[in-house]
Amino acid sequence: MSRDEAVHESLRKKGIEPGDSIEIISEDGRTIRGILMPHHEFSADEITTVKLDSGYNIGVKPRDIDSIRLISKLNSKDRKQKTKIVPSSPKKVGAPGKKISAKLPVVSIVSTGGTIASYVDYRTGAVKPAISADELAKSIPELLEICLPRTEVLYSILSENMRPENWTHLSEKVAHHLNSGSAGCIVPHGTDTMGFSAAALSFSLSNLTGPVVLVGSQRSSDRPSSDSTINLLSSARLCIDSDLGEVVVLMHSTSDDNCCTIHRGTRVRKCHSSRRDAFRSINEDPIGSVDRERILLNAPYDKKTNGKVNVDAKFDPDVALIQFYPSMTIERLRNFVKGAHGVIIAGTGLGHVHQDAIPVIKELTDKDIPVCMTTQCIWGSTNLNVYSTGRDMFSAGAIPLGDMLTETAYVKLSWVLAHAKDIDEVRKLMTSNLRREISDRRTR
Amino acid sequence: MSRDEAVHESLRKKGIEPGDSIEIISEDGRTIRGILMPHHEFSADEITTVKLDSGYNIGVKPRDIDSIRLISKLNSKDRKQKTKIVPSSPKKVGAPGKKISAKLPVVSIVSTGGTIASYVDYRTGAVKPAISADELAKSIPELLEICLPRTEVLYSILSENMRPENWTHLSEKVAHHLNSGSAGCIVPHGTDTMGFSAAALSFSLSNLTGPVVLVGSQRSSDRPSSDSTINLLSSARLCIDSDLGEVVVLMHSTSDDNCCTIHRGTRVRKCHSSRRDAFRSINEDPIGSVDRERILLNAPYDKKTNGKVNVDAKFDPDVALIQFYPSMTIERLRNFVKGAHGVIIAGTGLGHVHQDAIPVIKELTDKDIPVCMTTQCIWGSTNLNVYSTGRDMFSAGAIPLGDMLTETAYVKLSWVLAHAKDIDEVRKLMTSNLRREISDRRTR
Repeated sequence: MSRDEAVHESLRKKGIEPGDSIEIISEDGRTIRGILMPHHEFSADEITTVKLDSGYNIGVKPRDIDSIRLISKLNSKDRKQKTKIVPSSPKKVGAPGKKISAKLPVVSIVSTGGTIASYVDYRTGAVKPAISADELAKSIPELLEICLPRTEVLYSILSENMRPENWTHLSEKVAHHLNSGSAGCIVPHGTDTMGFSAAALSFSLSNLTGPVVLVGSQRSSDRPSSDSTINLLSSARLCIDSDLGEVVVLMHSTSDDNCCTIHRGTRVRKCHSSRRDAFRSINEDPIGSVDRERILLNAPYDKKTNGKVNVDAKFDPDVALIQFYPSMTIERLRNFVKGAHGVIIAGTGLGHVHQDAIPVIKELTDKDIPVCMTTQCIWGSTNLNVYSTGRDMFSAGAIPLGDMLTETAYVKLSWVLAHAKDIDEVRKLMTSNLRREISDRRTR
Repeated sequence: MSRDEAVHESLRKKGIEPGDSIEIISEDGRTIRGILMPHHEFSADEITTVKLDSGYNIGVKPRDIDSIRLISKLNSKDRKQKTKIVPSSPKKVGAPGKKISAKLPVVSIVSTGGTIASYVDYRTGAVKPAISADELAKSIPELLEICLPRTEVLYSILSENMRPENWTHLSEKVAHHLNSGSAGCIVPHGTDTMGFSAAALSFSLSNLTGPVVLVGSQRSSDRPSSDSTINLLSSARLCIDSDLGEVVVLMHSTSDDNCCTIHRGTRVRKCHSSRRDAFRSINEDPIGSVDRERILLNAPYDKKTNGKVNVDAKFDPDVALIQFYPSMTIERLRNFVKGAHGVIIAGTGLGHVHQDAIPVIKELTDKDIPVCMTTQCIWGSTNLNVYSTGRDMFSAGAIPLGDMLTETAYVKLSWVLAHAKDIDEVRKLMTSNLRREISDRRTR
């Protein structure tokens, strides 16, 4: 019997199952106490994985195990919850184009990856994206009671690896799903760049026939504190029970599990690296909220239409984004923007840079490269009309973007550059309110 | 009589004074209604400046004026407040090194410029830095009742033009003032980069014998809504009546004029481009507050000492700061960091970049160029131990900086590079808590 088989045999004999509290004594005498984690299809078979009290996982190789002891069994109620991340027999529920014969409304789930669709790699203990949209749907029984999920795994990547070409591809898929009879489309997405993707879909899609809901999770689904269930379920309810026709992000309103907030795709930003209520609507109130009782839409929003979703998903991949800082030299700025088709500078305060950098703005605009200003403050608006610096920047051709978020401005410029015929049209589109991304139309 | 003299004569005859509501009919038939602004020593004599209801100023040349009409006189109580920005005879109250013979405590005001010490350029209507520290002190009668201001104008610049060499110079001046008997040192500063300068002084100064208070104004002093008076007065009270021995930023707590918040210099950030309560302590509670009744210090802080202030104000001017974004290419990143002595990358979420960018981190760290990670979320901490991306980045040599603010991290690295002897010491100092700038010492 191999060491691997011996470990399995020992677990079986002692009646130890995933979810139970155990203690491992390692060959080198260390004591490891925690919860035995289930094997995942992506994890190496021979590794025994233990979730420590800290929430971190540790993987132990068979040859490093001296003995295993059961501390306590998981009670059966908890077992149901804790093991739901590994559905026994995932299968495809529906696909676009196929005939749907159920009475429940169809809701599409087009998964891109991220924590909400991830598993713990039991070799390294790190979280990796892997769970399919189908597994995701199946792991939430309540979801299957209210809708017929039509699932598709588009990517299985962590969102820091999303590129503009992914926005294009995703836009086309979402439009296809909505145009194939879905009441709405849920997009499970890593939270890191979810705000960027939400802005991208906001510009690329129009005439929406239902909500497009980007949804993520700040805690991996194998953690009891995971926020994925409530976020997904609330997204499905929004798709079914609202007349919303916009791209939104739906995430926890607070650290509690009782309410989710609906943020406009062009106005939302990840403002905390780990809290479940990490997302915030910036410079406007959220569109609304979803709790156990009801869906509330408080702010003005675009209603869904009866026509066909339009998709116009070209993005210029050569927009440079930079935050101004005190020791930024002209040379470094020049090197950075070299060859870019457009530049977003997050300036200080009302949108300022050091006076020495103003000639670089002029050089670029003289070559018809748009240079747009946002504020690194996050909240508030640019205004190049108050201080002498701002006036000089405006004279040099800088385009102030009012209260548009820096990330939205960057995505919008990527989209506008792929659509405008000249610099004048770029300037006009960038300062126009296309998707409720800018509150006023002050030209400075 | 010239047109200029004719305008003055017309104003005199009609009894119109600065602060009065007037109406100008221009040569081309336009009607301009607003408040007549006082002439400033820096403004062109011949321009008549009117503050419009919008808060903006417009300057009208004599040759463009057809007629001027008085709408209403400013009442005398308001006049006192509105005209205080132009003190009649500014004179130097004290200078470091000179013997001080008053009973009131000496408080230094070392001015760098910014809105708090600015005037409206009546040719263009834009705000420019100009009012001296002395004028500033004199314009607030209550200040002279509680302390003897010792004033010095170090710079008269808008803070977007501050460079690391200014931090050095400013640090030395502040130390000199404190070491010459001042109870504390107030530094009027533009709000745009006040957070950066506050962090710089936090690292360059130690063994403080009194508070060092950076203070600004979000509204220029000629506007009735200016916050400069309360901010300056509260700063002076903090210098006189507290045992604080730290570098702090003191600004409005809310939009109201009744309370100011004391923020630690390494934890503060301008989070709104225009609100009076724009500054926020990030990832920790503010140190305390100052209202009309009392000074409250709630959080742990360093107390002032009786010794001599140490100043160690060298900063490396070649730190590159960049925010990761989805279409950032390796080439653009390489071009940007070329030649930098250190790099701060504000990553997504827990501090991530696209997997393609990880080799660039390795290239830099292989050459002993430190690459430190912060989060662009603003709130929360980095953690390169949760996702596979983070683990790969850590293996490539990235230094995660926990919950340190991006701006503080950039300033700290500028300071550390000027002091550490090798990359190991840089890594150690960057992850150590030197000025309460980092909450925990997790190495990842």
